[in-house]
Amino acid sequence: MTTQPILYGAAYYDEYMPCERLAEDMKLLVKAGMNVIRIAESTWGTMEPERGRFDFHHIDRVLEAAQQHGLKVIVGTPTYALPAWLAHECPQILIEPEPAMVTNGSVHCHGPELYGRRQNMDIGHPYYRERAEVMIRALMDHVKERSCIIGYQLDNETKYYGNANDRIQKAFLEWLHERYGTLEEINRVFGLNYWSNRINSWEEFPDVRGTINGSLASAFDEYRRATVKDFLSWQAGIVGEYVKPGQFITQNFDYEWRGWSFGLQPQVDHFKCAEAVTLAGVDIYHPSQADLTGTEIAMGGDISRSLKQSNYLVVETQAQGFPQWTPYPGQLRLQAFSHLASGALGVMYWHWHSLHNSWETYWRGVLPHDLRPGRIYEEASVIGKELQKLSPHLQGLKKRNKVAILVSNEALSALEHYPIGDVLRKREFKYNDVMRWLYDAFYRNNIECDFLPATTRDFSAYSLVAVPALYTASEGLILALKDFVYRGGELLATFKSFFTDENVQVYHDSQPHYLGEVFGMCYNEFTASSNLKLESLGVLDGAQCSDWEELLYPFTDTKVVAYYDNPAWDGYAAVTENYCSHGRAWYLGCYFSPEHLQNFVREVIAKAVPGIRPHPETFPVIIREGVNEAGHKLTYYLNYSAVKQTASYSGSEATELTAGRALHDGDKVTLEPWGVQIVEEN
Amino acid sequence: MTTQPILYGAAYYDEYMPCERLAEDMKLLVKAGMNVIRIAESTWGTMEPERGRFDFHHIDRVLEAAQQHGLKVIVGTPTYALPAWLAHECPQILIEPEPAMVTNGSVHCHGPELYGRRQNMDIGHPYYRERAEVMIRALMDHVKERSCIIGYQLDNETKYYGNANDRIQKAFLEWLHERYGTLEEINRVFGLNYWSNRINSWEEFPDVRGTINGSLASAFDEYRRATVKDFLSWQAGIVGEYVKPGQFITQNFDYEWRGWSFGLQPQVDHFKCAEAVTLAGVDIYHPSQADLTGTEIAMGGDISRSLKQSNYLVVETQAQGFPQWTPYPGQLRLQAFSHLASGALGVMYWHWHSLHNSWETYWRGVLPHDLRPGRIYEEASVIGKELQKLSPHLQGLKKRNKVAILVSNEALSALEHYPIGDVLRKREFKYNDVMRWLYDAFYRNNIECDFLPATTRDFSAYSLVAVPALYTASEGLILALKDFVYRGGELLATFKSFFTDENVQVYHDSQPHYLGEVFGMCYNEFTASSNLKLESLGVLDGAQCSDWEELLYPFTDTKVVAYYDNPAWDGYAAVTENYCSHGRAWYLGCYFSPEHLQNFVREVIAKAVPGIRPHPETFPVIIREGVNEAGHKLTYYLNYSAVKQTASYSGSEATELTAGRALHDGDKVTLEPWGVQIVEEN
Amino acid sequence: MTTQPILYGAAYYDEYMPCERLAEDMKLLVKAGMNVIRIAESTWGTMEPERGRFDFHHIDRVLEAAQQHGLKVIVGTPTYALPAWLAHECPQILIEPEPAMVTNGSVHCHGPELYGRRQNMDIGHPYYRERAEVMIRALMDHVKERSCIIGYQLDNETKYYGNANDRIQKAFLEWLHERYGTLEEINRVFGLNYWSNRINSWEEFPDVRGTINGSLASAFDEYRRATVKDFLSWQAGIVGEYVKPGQFITQNFDYEWRGWSFGLQPQVDHFKCAEAVTLAGVDIYHPSQADLTGTEIAMGGDISRSLKQSNYLVVETQAQGFPQWTPYPGQLRLQAFSHLASGALGVMYWHWHSLHNSWETYWRGVLPHDLRPGRIYEEASVIGKELQKLSPHLQGLKKRNKVAILVSNEALSALEHYPIGDVLRKREFKYNDVMRWLYDAFYRNNIECDFLPATTRDFSAYSLVAVPALYTASEGLILALKDFVYRGGELLATFKSFFTDENVQVYHDSQPHYLGEVFGMCYNEFTASSNLKLESLGVLDGAQCSDWEELLYPFTDTKVVAYYDNPAWDGYAAVTENYCSHGRAWYLGCYFSPEHLQNFVREVIAKAVPGIRPHPETFPVIIREGVNEAGHKLTYYLNYSAVKQTASYSGSEATELTAGRALHDGDKVTLEPWGVQIVEEN
Repeated sequence: MTTQPILYGAAYYDEYMPCERLAEDMKLLVKAGMNVIRIAESTWGTMEPERGRFDFHHIDRVLEAAQQHGLKVIVGTPTYALPAWLAHECPQILIEPEPAMVTNGSVHCHGPELYGRRQNMDIGHPYYRERAEVMIRALMDHVKERSCIIGYQLDNETKYYGNANDRIQKAFLEWLHERYGTLEEINRVFGLNYWSNRINSWEEFPDVRGTINGSLASAFDEYRRATVKDFLSWQAGIVGEYVKPGQFITQNFDYEWRGWSFGLQPQVDHFKCAEAVTLAGVDIYHPSQADLTGTEIAMGGDISRSLKQSNYLVVETQAQGFPQWTPYPGQLRLQAFSHLASGALGVMYWHWHSLHNSWETYWRGVLPHDLRPGRIYEEASVIGKELQKLSPHLQGLKKRNKVAILVSNEALSALEHYPIGDVLRKREFKYNDVMRWLYDAFYRNNIECDFLPATTRDFSAYSLVAVPALYTASEGLILALKDFVYRGGELLATFKSFFTDENVQVYHDSQPHYLGEVFGMCYNEFTASSNLKLESLGVLDGAQCSDWEELLYPFTDTKVVAYYDNPAWDGYAAVTENYCSHGRAWYLGCYFSPEHLQNFVREVIAKAVPGIRPHPETFPVIIREGVNEAGHKLTYYLNYSAVKQTASYSGSEATELTAGRALHDGDKVTLEPWGVQIVEEN
Repeated sequence: MTTQPILYGAAYYDEYMPCERLAEDMKLLVKAGMNVIRIAESTWGTMEPERGRFDFHHIDRVLEAAQQHGLKVIVGTPTYALPAWLAHECPQILIEPEPAMVTNGSVHCHGPELYGRRQNMDIGHPYYRERAEVMIRALMDHVKERSCIIGYQLDNETKYYGNANDRIQKAFLEWLHERYGTLEEINRVFGLNYWSNRINSWEEFPDVRGTINGSLASAFDEYRRATVKDFLSWQAGIVGEYVKPGQFITQNFDYEWRGWSFGLQPQVDHFKCAEAVTLAGVDIYHPSQADLTGTEIAMGGDISRSLKQSNYLVVETQAQGFPQWTPYPGQLRLQAFSHLASGALGVMYWHWHSLHNSWETYWRGVLPHDLRPGRIYEEASVIGKELQKLSPHLQGLKKRNKVAILVSNEALSALEHYPIGDVLRKREFKYNDVMRWLYDAFYRNNIECDFLPATTRDFSAYSLVAVPALYTASEGLILALKDFVYRGGELLATFKSFFTDENVQVYHDSQPHYLGEVFGMCYNEFTASSNLKLESLGVLDGAQCSDWEELLYPFTDTKVVAYYDNPAWDGYAAVTENYCSHGRAWYLGCYFSPEHLQNFVREVIAKAVPGIRPHPETFPVIIREGVNEAGHKLTYYLNYSAVKQTASYSGSEATELTAGRALHDGDKVTLEPWGVQIVEEN
Repeated sequence: MTTQPILYGAAYYDEYMPCERLAEDMKLLVKAGMNVIRIAESTWGTMEPERGRFDFHHIDRVLEAAQQHGLKVIVGTPTYALPAWLAHECPQILIEPEPAMVTNGSVHCHGPELYGRRQNMDIGHPYYRERAEVMIRALMDHVKERSCIIGYQLDNETKYYGNANDRIQKAFLEWLHERYGTLEEINRVFGLNYWSNRINSWEEFPDVRGTINGSLASAFDEYRRATVKDFLSWQAGIVGEYVKPGQFITQNFDYEWRGWSFGLQPQVDHFKCAEAVTLAGVDIYHPSQADLTGTEIAMGGDISRSLKQSNYLVVETQAQGFPQWTPYPGQLRLQAFSHLASGALGVMYWHWHSLHNSWETYWRGVLPHDLRPGRIYEEASVIGKELQKLSPHLQGLKKRNKVAILVSNEALSALEHYPIGDVLRKREFKYNDVMRWLYDAFYRNNIECDFLPATTRDFSAYSLVAVPALYTASEGLILALKDFVYRGGELLATFKSFFTDENVQVYHDSQPHYLGEVFGMCYNEFTASSNLKLESLGVLDGAQCSDWEELLYPFTDTKVVAYYDNPAWDGYAAVTENYCSHGRAWYLGCYFSPEHLQNFVREVIAKAVPGIRPHPETFPVIIREGVNEAGHKLTYYLNYSAVKQTASYSGSEATELTAGRALHDGDKVTLEPWGVQIVEEN
């Protein structure tokens, strides 16, 4: 076999070192079995200390040393952190963010924010673009001949950063103009008559930050997501001029951040932006210690793999991260193999050495602050050695999942402006909570999923499509899903789906729009109770509802899976199941406890949906599968617990790779605490 | 009988409809037994899409259709929601609100807020007034001859919106000048020597938003409340020029909003503003489902009825409202009759059809989003039919209550600047909490109340006057209350009453000022413990105190109703009762659990005060009484619970109106869950 | 004996009186045994009602009356509250504070805050200084010949008030320039390469409010603290020109305010500022009623006494304070004697009469709002009489403590920018929490402490030095502490100590920097668990950890006092004890429950450290000792509880002073609830 080795390495910042470390670090990297570093991203200030004066000595030193030590290098464009001189020269480059509610619900603008943090520039500002291009070209020109470079990263975790300054608002109006043609049409599709908000001339178009119209606000979000793709495509164009055959262009996509990678990224449409790169790259951080479940690794990987339907690179993940994440012994190894089990072609830590000052001093890397190889380095070295040995078996993992989760940035945005539930209780319950509710139930049942964007129209590759909170859905998408069920597909949708059109206007016919027949029910009432349970003959009995309940009228032949346990809602269904033509459709009319959903997925869907055959094991034993480059089936057994677990191998003759043990159908697979076993069919 | 029929209807917005609905809606309205709609308020943007160009086609369509279907119409002036062109033309029309505390207790101004929401304009701005007058006159001219119009509504839920811009501050200084004459006097009455705040020239008068002087801040609130009356009177003057005989002018007064109608409106003196209209109108929203108690309906009605000591119109109330308020079966009917039981002459829902976009998409109307008659419409239709039948019996209900609650905007404002209790615990415990504490105790004991403003001097119509937290009280008012007790009245006052003068200066003699003799006690110490109970031989024993405790020295003959259960406060009284001349006075020196207050009111006051004879039933059975236009006594029995209840009828021969059943003294009245029975004496 | 009498009195504001009170008040003061008042501070507005026009009639009246009644007077300069005319004339004198995080972590500036509150001026603004000097000189000229004046107070509770305006930022750059020489050096020591933050010219130096570099932010705090000293020295220079022999100059230092005096003042280096005055003055407020523990009185006193290693004046403390602090009977007396027990030479209440308006209306003084002598006045009178009698015995108390707590403003600031623990949980756990954790454990064990600043190099006067969270520590200080242990000293340090250098750069060698040998351990890992306990054979067993845990590697001979009870951390120590050369050192690697720390201090340190011999009594019996001017040992027995307590006297023949009873070794000392006994050896 001649597969590429699994990439294993870390981000490396010579610029931040408190002392001369380069030779020592290169030795340690190699000794740990690492083979790649990422450099240059975020260091504009050192590469161009004043306008037009370039200083690449850090870059040169590191490239030279990497080359000497046989390390591969990924070079990042440094554009996501402004140098001080640029902010000083043109403060308007800094974003002007959405305003906070100041008092009495009133909103104000505050002007550009102050210089300091990264990721706070207007990515569409002409002068920023001008200076960024000069910087990128200087860098590319300088490094392009280095043979150790395997690829380039565009910017980093690019977003629109909530920018709402005049420039982007003017550009937004042009976009509106182009999309809708006339103000009359805009008034109509957004419903601006309400509260006298109609706009009669482009000149009087008010600052969109003050709007109380969620359709307009959602459109602004959508436009701003489009500017992220525009920005990445523009950088890809520049970098592409310098790229050599075999080098990739990637982005470090990140997810909604709730202190860790939680769900779909609100500010970026990953599916659209992935078109700008040749390799999907991702940034995955997650809780650790007793809270390590592997869910974020799997979800982040599944999304990332789905972007280009191919393997992807984990550009950043935690060696240690936050103090509360200091990994227990064994967890670092479990995490690394879990990434590979989702289809990653490499794992890179952020970052090599813990920083000695500034914002991320307590976000620790492979080396601790004393810069000496410690426990984490030792654990990484074990992983590095194993990867060197197993690369040929693990590389190029492909999957053929039968379940897809349909996700939508548009629905996510709309639900920011129309929050789910009882707004008086101010509970934060959002799109990604619903998405994760569904995803986690599949994950814990060892049913692997792909992700699909809302632009999908052909679902025929899947047995089951799961649709969380698809609040805005065009009729095109709705009809495609209907067609999928008619042709034999199985559809599982939640509350708050199919409710508004692509302009976030509520469909003014029966809900769910066009899909009553498919789900075998309709509804026009809903509530948000604080104390309501489900009543069911099955696994959902007693489930605690919260946040949102739709009062479903089941049709005659529809099976009511669960009712609401309140005499006031007698006769209304909470969860339904309906056969429709050749397919079947479930509707979850309310949110309830995740444990009950996990049981529902296991006992109902896993049993009944063709093509879905989950393992008997459930979380904390996680099983992930695929086919490697050699065409052999590969099964990862992952123990997400501090106690020993066993699983049962079923399949043809195989080898457990970490120990090199032969395995036969029915053999026990024993997993140490936070342990890993990898089985390859012979 | 030739009484006017009970008004029953909804707000109607042709402007917001997603499709042609007018004919269908008119038919549905009539079919449901509705007889009135309200239109035009908030639609300035459609009526005057650009400055000076008017378009009344929505208005005309609806008036025409209403007329054809025999529906009455209330036309609102549209001034509470600015059109975009006006904000664009003159951004200074938008309010500049009180500043939020930004950091370290420091305050800043932020400039006018952004355009978008309603109710954010400076109601005294000359250009706003100019444009509003043009708009109002154009509308009035256009509709004045329509015979279906029964009245006009001025603006909507008018307030001063927290405005604190330069214009209103300058006007405030003129008001101060006029009221106090000299700066020397202002320094004196507000105590501006403190912390060097004294002002020596009008030029140096600082931005009042920064003040730490609660007297000055309270005066600013008082002035701003006066501007609301000024605004309504100004609109009444214009509209009055067009009004025909028989047409009313109303306002839609709303209450302190805590997610629902909670208590006295901080920004408006309803009693004063009511002088500007010919019919009191009110906006009442309240919790629902298991939290429906009827308290807000009763309180809002009692205040509204007291404004002009006459019947009033419920201009807005919920058909469905928030998702968490979706009514249980029967609740909509219970609510409608409860409004009538307080003296409403009509009930109008906000609004007819649920909106399909923007801010209030989830504040549902009579029709759901699918615009088809659903469960709520059916329930409303039942009510509509009953009202048509019973109107002659229910209309014009008059009451002769023996209890009055004295309320004060001035006290409310002052307690915003001098919060009750332990400020370190940051508990939000305000004037309206005390007011509701008292009101609710009477309500749940079925003792009906009127409300009186702090300008009242003659209390002779009442047996008992209840005074919650009258923190500022002029000596004139104090002496009037004293006189009331001397002449045989009964007075029940709470802590934080009679403490400061009309300039919110603490009276520097013995507390309660001038009333020691009346209450039979004085005090000069108080505390705010976190764990203190009452000790009593009566119903108050064991009551949990919180937020505020005054340490009362009882005089020799005073009856101590409760002590504090803490050896440190030995000898101090918490609650006292005192006979004084021909009257009696109770003083509640602390806040304690509402259940104990309810018992106190029941067992002490209800037994002892002449003229107060409560029914044996208590909440959740609510009984409300009055005399109808025919002069017959009418008694409403209202069941605010999900379980069947019984009450006992006592009185002369009567008829239960909903079922038409004859009723004799001693007969049981059976109330279904959330049920209503109405008894008219023959 | 000819000692000065104990000072006992109150702040007095003739300016704020609602009526003529002066003669009456002077009589009452004298009758209560009081002998001193403080005047003039905060009354600039009345003394200079317009620029350059002075009016001293309030001052003259009070000085005249005080003189007649034999009262001493402290005159304060009035500069901490701006007159309205000055803010109007020059609004830039008002501070521009650090910005609040507005949204998405972005920061903005808001301009100068509005006039109103006190302590909101830029203390370095040239025009403020100019006007302040004119005011101070006019006042000093006017009063300097008054013989009743015993001293002057400079300003009041001076701080830099969070000011971050342009002026102070420009001055900060000059300070940086002077300290570090070049920008290259600044980039290096602060690590500004990170996130492209390096600065290449002084012109482009960004607004420091936006910085994400904690080293730079900490330096800004340090500079601003230096401006407080500069300001006080400048005022001292002016006032010093007028001072007569025997008169003192003082400041009213206050502590970190958490609703009361909690810990080290973040904005002021008291040790440095104390050089500007001749008498240390202090402001101590504390919880009361059931929460009265005496801890703040002891801590505030111990710091204040340490400033000039001499007696100090309690310039302000509560007579009543907040409503929730209304003292229980006996508490006022306990508090007064507790101040003296720490070495105070006088106790002054803020303030004499409760105010009738404005910000502090509910911060009550000796007289209640009715201005009549009440319960508090009577209790104060008892104290006053006792002080008159006992002054010769109590005055001039000196202590020789064997324990010192090393405190550092620099560490405090740095931990604001690098918060302890899990930042996602947003718990507020700060430097002063650790300092108080240590201090309180000693206090409750009746082991008295001095405080030392971080500039200390000679620790030889102490047996034990306790070091809380010394996050930044120069190598000079570290070596001095090492030397102290080598010479036989005992050192007790907590987590988060010795971690960064004086520029808040993490030391990049083994932690704790240079002290591994001393503590017998090192570490390079740490975590912040939410559920972790200690495992120990001693008193720490079962202690609940929270917020921060360092994973210590003990060296061979080190005694592990406690481990972490989690298999993942097997082998790591949590608390260590190590003999090193002639000394010994304990290290607390984590935060745990205060009760366990109290036991640790009692059972380990108190037994083992030479020179520390605590009494058998522990909190709530507090014992404080010293030697009076006559050279006799004085012991205060203080009962901080509502139940009677007994202690045991041990020592030579003595007299209990409050009762005049003779006392012999072994005699019981009986303490009434909240009671005091004072024993003087004969």
